[in-house]
Amino acid sequence: MTDKTLRVAIIGAGRIGRVHAQAIASHPRAQLVLVSDPFGTAAEDLAAAHGARAVKDAADVFADPEVDAVIIGSPTPLHAEQVLAAARAGKAVLCEKPVASSVAEARELESELAGFEHKPVMVGFQRRYDPSIKKARDLVAAGEIGRVEQMTIQSRDPAAPPASYIASSGGIFKDCTIHDFDQARFFMGDIAEVTAFGQNNIPQLAETGDFDGAVVVLRSVDGAVASITNNRHCAAGYDQRMEVHGEDGSLFVDNLRPTSVTVNKKDFSAAQDPYLDYFLERYADAYRDELTSFIDAINDGGEVSPTVADGIEALVLAEAAEESARSGRPVRVS
Amino acid sequence: MTDKTLRVAIIGAGRIGRVHAQAIASHPRAQLVLVSDPFGTAAEDLAAAHGARAVKDAADVFADPEVDAVIIGSPTPLHAEQVLAAARAGKAVLCEKPVASSVAEARELESELAGFEHKPVMVGFQRRYDPSIKKARDLVAAGEIGRVEQMTIQSRDPAAPPASYIASSGGIFKDCTIHDFDQARFFMGDIAEVTAFGQNNIPQLAETGDFDGAVVVLRSVDGAVASITNNRHCAAGYDQRMEVHGEDGSLFVDNLRPTSVTVNKKDFSAAQDPYLDYFLERYADAYRDELTSFIDAINDGGEVSPTVADGIEALVLAEAAEESARSGRPVRVS
Amino acid sequence: MTDKTLRVAIIGAGRIGRVHAQAIASHPRAQLVLVSDPFGTAAEDLAAAHGARAVKDAADVFADPEVDAVIIGSPTPLHAEQVLAAARAGKAVLCEKPVASSVAEARELESELAGFEHKPVMVGFQRRYDPSIKKARDLVAAGEIGRVEQMTIQSRDPAAPPASYIASSGGIFKDCTIHDFDQARFFMGDIAEVTAFGQNNIPQLAETGDFDGAVVVLRSVDGAVASITNNRHCAAGYDQRMEVHGEDGSLFVDNLRPTSVTVNKKDFSAAQDPYLDYFLERYADAYRDELTSFIDAINDGGEVSPTVADGIEALVLAEAAEESARSGRPVRVS
Amino acid sequence: MTDKTLRVAIIGAGRIGRVHAQAIASHPRAQLVLVSDPFGTAAEDLAAAHGARAVKDAADVFADPEVDAVIIGSPTPLHAEQVLAAARAGKAVLCEKPVASSVAEARELESELAGFEHKPVMVGFQRRYDPSIKKARDLVAAGEIGRVEQMTIQSRDPAAPPASYIASSGGIFKDCTIHDFDQARFFMGDIAEVTAFGQNNIPQLAETGDFDGAVVVLRSVDGAVASITNNRHCAAGYDQRMEVHGEDGSLFVDNLRPTSVTVNKKDFSAAQDPYLDYFLERYADAYRDELTSFIDAINDGGEVSPTVADGIEALVLAEAAEESARSGRPVRVS
Repeated sequence: MTDKTLRVAIIGAGRIGRVHAQAIASHPRAQLVLVSDPFGTAAEDLAAAHGARAVKDAADVFADPEVDAVIIGSPTPLHAEQVLAAARAGKAVLCEKPVASSVAEARELESELAGFEHKPVMVGFQRRYDPSIKKARDLVAAGEIGRVEQMTIQSRDPAAPPASYIASSGGIFKDCTIHDFDQARFFMGDIAEVTAFGQNNIPQLAETGDFDGAVVVLRSVDGAVASITNNRHCAAGYDQRMEVHGEDGSLFVDNLRPTSVTVNKKDFSAAQDPYLDYFLERYADAYRDELTSFIDAINDGGEVSPTVADGIEALVLAEAAEESARSGRPVRVS
Repeated sequence: MTDKTLRVAIIGAGRIGRVHAQAIASHPRAQLVLVSDPFGTAAEDLAAAHGARAVKDAADVFADPEVDAVIIGSPTPLHAEQVLAAARAGKAVLCEKPVASSVAEARELESELAGFEHKPVMVGFQRRYDPSIKKARDLVAAGEIGRVEQMTIQSRDPAAPPASYIASSGGIFKDCTIHDFDQARFFMGDIAEVTAFGQNNIPQLAETGDFDGAVVVLRSVDGAVASITNNRHCAAGYDQRMEVHGEDGSLFVDNLRPTSVTVNKKDFSAAQDPYLDYFLERYADAYRDELTSFIDAINDGGEVSPTVADGIEALVLAEAAEESARSGRPVRVS
Repeated sequence: MTDKTLRVAIIGAGRIGRVHAQAIASHPRAQLVLVSDPFGTAAEDLAAAHGARAVKDAADVFADPEVDAVIIGSPTPLHAEQVLAAARAGKAVLCEKPVASSVAEARELESELAGFEHKPVMVGFQRRYDPSIKKARDLVAAGEIGRVEQMTIQSRDPAAPPASYIASSGGIFKDCTIHDFDQARFFMGDIAEVTAFGQNNIPQLAETGDFDGAVVVLRSVDGAVASITNNRHCAAGYDQRMEVHGEDGSLFVDNLRPTSVTVNKKDFSAAQDPYLDYFLERYADAYRDELTSFIDAINDGGEVSPTVADGIEALVLAEAAEESARSGRPVRVS
Repeated sequence: MTDKTLRVAIIGAGRIGRVHAQAIASHPRAQLVLVSDPFGTAAEDLAAAHGARAVKDAADVFADPEVDAVIIGSPTPLHAEQVLAAARAGKAVLCEKPVASSVAEARELESELAGFEHKPVMVGFQRRYDPSIKKARDLVAAGEIGRVEQMTIQSRDPAAPPASYIASSGGIFKDCTIHDFDQARFFMGDIAEVTAFGQNNIPQLAETGDFDGAVVVLRSVDGAVASITNNRHCAAGYDQRMEVHGEDGSLFVDNLRPTSVTVNKKDFSAAQDPYLDYFLERYADAYRDELTSFIDAINDGGEVSPTVADGIEALVLAEAAEESARSGRPVRVS
């Protein structure tokens, strides 16, 4: 069974859809067969580049007998219903984060999924598959630094999206920090308390009502503390770093850069490239390894990770962070 | 006047007293003339190593006409009264942090000092004179990274002190974090709100009632946010790092190491030395430059920095952090 | 024409053949159609993994009308005749280094090729397409460091090949250093003089009669000097570094590593991964970009780089190095 | 005896004399008592800054009964005779490199010194006391990287001296490379063969007849090979790096920088300070530890290192390099 080529459909032919299409193209056991997108020629364009078919309506994807698995990269409000429809149609599902618009909706999805037997449903926290983050996790699991006491996670986007995007993004905590929440859980386990601090650093985004910067402090059930810092802009590129401090040592994950060139001149030395510009480049390997893990779970019948339950936990933290940042008070979550 | 050699006395012949004695020895315009310490032969030992005289009683220092300036490195509860006595005796004063045991005591000292004309009184936040931190500050002041939006400060001691020390330390926020508070103010200006999270990572310190780890989030009056992470132990040495993120760039201050050797072997590459072991080594240059600035202020009549007012502000933050960590709520401070 | 998919055959299904097959698989405008290898099932295995056909005899490749381009990864003694045969058959050719076994043979090939019109013939110095080396070259070309004065190139393999391989390798200068020679020419232009120093560091290779370590000093026609250091083994992995020193600055190209994780513990800090293990991993991007450049030259009719003439110049340097290392004297080459 | 304060005289109040004066000032068991310099007020100026006496004539130093040890920082042609005179007068001697103008003169000095009992005579290759180089040496001695196979040493001055200095410098090999020669011997032991390549990169120095750049390849008696690269100018500062490659690993010594600040902006990331500007700053710790070692040898009767014999060996290599660079041929030295 494991030599079978997985026939994959992508719902949503935007930026993230193209990333997955690229990962599929370079995977020896996967083939992109169908793309759906209701807008313009997006589905046709992406499908043509990969020798796949195109449809407008996601329903045609679920109904297609030649589709084994569906990758959902549509707008967030559609996630829960599309995950459910795909699972009901017997497809394996890899859904981009967040798995639903709210904790309530996600819990309803989980409850529905529990009601019937279905193929694997995986949530797209691709960072768990980033070779650097994964290696750090493996070292922690191997006891290399002892018990985890403290973490810092820094995630900054290279440049802020337009106000229109932000208005429909669900807010910085569900849109950006949600990856950091899953990452913190990946290293520290369950979280007990969330305290968040929102910022408005970018004047032209002030009217969106959303924060464009944030610091979030998580306290785990085991007593470890993580501080997460987010920013919608960062002059030097896409800033993605992490530190894990244990009783016997610490691990840092640094940014990636396109080359290993350093420049030495009169005014400075050892200057490196700016960071890889954005998540498509930074996490290209992660998307590839995520897909491989998804395919392996389908073919070999193993567990997927992260699960819908992981997606719910991250949403819980995001909603708690929003509440904390608005109320100015810590929020207990377990 | 500027060629005059400053005759300096040190009160307290402990670890920090020896650091100052060394800085004085290597300064061309300063001479250690007197050391006081009530315990054992500490004063004699330090004095002998530098060709100075020794006394048991600090009062003998204030009364000594051959002393131009006093460096106070005694236990914290004595700071305020000794600063005042030295200033009344016409001595310039450099007092180790914290300048007093409490905000209340520090404000009373400030008020007393305002009542008479005295020589410069400086507070020992030596990090302001660390070449790396100072350079970062100069770059920020020059507009190199634009408006400061976010900071992270990480301060970890190589190994926890004995429980007995901690019991009389005034607590982690006044004993350790106070340096980070001053450092945050050095880059972000006045602070509006403090939220602190205490940890007990080290079982054998649990009974002290003090925290041995902490994360503190500061929000400045201007809206910048800093996260400070402290730990009483760190396997790789004395961990002292800082990041300042501005709208146009960011500055990192890394740890110092004793050599520039890197080792490449089968299992790893580019391994560097552990961090310089502790504050005496890490801030040796800072103590020297702090002394130079102190001497320059005395001889040339300039302003000292940090002032008693800076010392009070740091104490305000430390007390607010303690309150926040105990109550689980943010504390407004301005 | 530029949208046409190039039908590629690979001659030689060994390690380097598999690298090219992978690069072809991930290229949107190339397809592996044929693999030839006389030994065992090597051709079949590689062909099967990529949906291509397999033959034993390279002559069947040249005769195949469905092949547009040939990548030659056969043993060195076959290179020259296969390049010629492929070119005569109307195929574009990408030949692995060295382009021939000797300068004499390479010059004869060049002369034959000059006698008829043929498709592009490119030589596989893939480092010219390594993103880091290419960026350094672009910076030099842009005048970023002024006139080049000095270079150092260090190339060390992770572990020595068996003595049997070395015996038929053509010697370290044609087998290993030849890449460094082309790299030096890429930055310094034509070379005037070669002085080489051979070493035997690995006892079990001594009986091969070949060197297993070498230092080569090149003086360019323009007066720049490069030192190249080679070693058949390196504990920390595949060591591939370069420095270019100009009158106004310098550029370093560092090793690549599989992750950006650094480890800090009691005995060391900032330890990184060992270097990427070998050339397949280190130059994966280079092989991919090399293929793209090859395809672009075929489709768009542009110039290939490096050319057969570049291949000859590198061989000239390799033979001069061998002569110098054996005679103990500098050898002039222009 | 070891608590005795050593009374030191300095001959030559130039740049290097001031460095030694500073090292003496910060040493607890040394005192600068006398400075001699025939030119202008140089001796007076340096002496006044350190509370010492000044004379014009070096003979007055040798005759002074209050001088225990002499540090010779005069022009090279005076070294040999002053070392001899000081030793005859019963002084310990620390002589700057090179110990004499030529191998012949140095050997005559050695022979004279062998004729009578004298205090320790040490040669000023301060790099042996640089904490980084010393640590690397200790790691090699401890077997950390196995047998040494290859070295690279890079030494570049921040800016070329005036042509007038170069004309009387003895040539780049005796003036600059001599430190690298001693450093190579420190790691590889005795040298068997020297091959040197001179360059003229700086047009305004061409008429001096000396090289302003050089690459030297040393082959040790044990078969290790070192390449040394020198340049009279380097845009990014004083470039002082070394690599030692052994069978089990490698050690790099990187440049030092004044701070640990790194800057990240739109066009680059992780930019560090230029290298420490010149040898006074780069080797400040080395000069201090060299002095300590010298004083310990005098007080405790131990061996000095490096010895006059080491000084001779370095001169042998310098003369061989000059001969090789002029003749275009390797020169055997053992």
